[in-house]
Amino acid sequence: MDNTLLWGYHPVYEALRSGRRTIETLFMVQDRISPREEELIQNARNAGVTVQGKTPQQLNALVGHGRHQGICARVSEYPISSLEDILASVTNSLDTAFILVLDQIVDPQNLGAIVRTAQCAGIHGIVIPKDRSAPPSAAVSKASAGALEHMQLAYVTNLVEALKHMKSSGLWVSGADQHGKDTVFQADLTGPLAVVIGGEEKGIRPLVKKHCDFIISVPQIGPIGSLNASAAAAVVMYEAFRQRSLGGVNH
Amino acid sequence: MDNTLLWGYHPVYEALRSGRRTIETLFMVQDRISPREEELIQNARNAGVTVQGKTPQQLNALVGHGRHQGICARVSEYPISSLEDILASVTNSLDTAFILVLDQIVDPQNLGAIVRTAQCAGIHGIVIPKDRSAPPSAAVSKASAGALEHMQLAYVTNLVEALKHMKSSGLWVSGADQHGKDTVFQADLTGPLAVVIGGEEKGIRPLVKKHCDFIISVPQIGPIGSLNASAAAAVVMYEAFRQRSLGGVNH
Repeated sequence: MDNTLLWGYHPVYEALRSGRRTIETLFMVQDRISPREEELIQNARNAGVTVQGKTPQQLNALVGHGRHQGICARVSEYPISSLEDILASVTNSLDTAFILVLDQIVDPQNLGAIVRTAQCAGIHGIVIPKDRSAPPSAAVSKASAGALEHMQLAYVTNLVEALKHMKSSGLWVSGADQHGKDTVFQADLTGPLAVVIGGEEKGIRPLVKKHCDFIISVPQIGPIGSLNASAAAAVVMYEAFRQRSLGGVNH
Repeated sequence: MDNTLLWGYHPVYEALRSGRRTIETLFMVQDRISPREEELIQNARNAGVTVQGKTPQQLNALVGHGRHQGICARVSEYPISSLEDILASVTNSLDTAFILVLDQIVDPQNLGAIVRTAQCAGIHGIVIPKDRSAPPSAAVSKASAGALEHMQLAYVTNLVEALKHMKSSGLWVSGADQHGKDTVFQADLTGPLAVVIGGEEKGIRPLVKKHCDFIISVPQIGPIGSLNASAAAAVVMYEAFRQRSLGGVNH
């Protein structure tokens, strides 16, 4: 897979805006330019990016499918962060740490959806095990509506070591699991916090769960087994957001 | 599109369990039967359903693609509810009304994800305008992990009339919009409630918004425009859930 191509309006627009990747060339189908595409071209030219016209067929051939919305860019690789980078940006922001940990989310659509929600909820960075996790591909950037271009993602070799490192840095590590003793609405999520969300099929792995300080559940009514990972992540992140902005679990 | 075929494990399993559709025939690829498939076949036989073996190629031809997990069923049409059905089930349940309104969600994946979360959050039924909304297809049932087979969906001709009907039945109608005066965490969501979520691109239509009693926003940090519809729906539904289970907005 070519990991130096981005496609779709939002990924390219946000990559330009965040400035974290070098944009080499912007390729566009230029038969009917919308106002937002006109702005994108202008932003690219202002940043010194070459803009090349392409036919839809040429873009299909370049990206390997037709889901590019007539927009594609040749870019430098996605800038992977380290856990230290994320912890340093927490320190610099003077905010209370709010880190997301994704234990083996394999579906790029799910990863993209979670990154988008995480960006909106004020997450400082996302920690992901290298093994059996979706990489930060163009498909993830598209599914995140470009939020991936702004979010810090650290891919770590040993997730348990990463949790230990966060704990020694003063964070509380909470794991979201259906069988948690307390619900997410009862737990205090106002301190420096890492939230672990498990993979689509099996949830958090037992060894990872063992290293969480506490386990929280999202309560569920009705006959269906469980929320999907991205809905559970949205509920947990926004409950933490609520408690932090209103000053505690009981407000 | 053939709307009397379901495919994938969860849709077929949940359709059998809910009993709302007649299952005529279960078609399965029977070369490697897993324990959960064995249970599904047993449930089907107990319900008097004919089980037919198929090759993967035969199933591909029957459903028109390969995303069937080796399982497909010939079923009666999806049982559409009316708004009256939903209101009657609220009355019968003795619960405080909790209805979701989706104003032109067009993507089956989004509709499925929202139906799944709604089922977990205790929504009594979902009201959807007939025009420009995803129908309750097999793809929606798959994306909902079968939750569609349990949830009541009413497809209405005139959404504004439906909102008026809900208001005259004692419900408060709240609309989720980025520019809401109060955040979802400040509004009181404990009474009989309908929550309106807008479509993917344009949000709630102006005329529909005008008929909401109040507008609530999901607060957002960071450079990206807005949460996607299914994440916003998850946050709003679970905040209402939280307030109802804990006894008020300030708990």
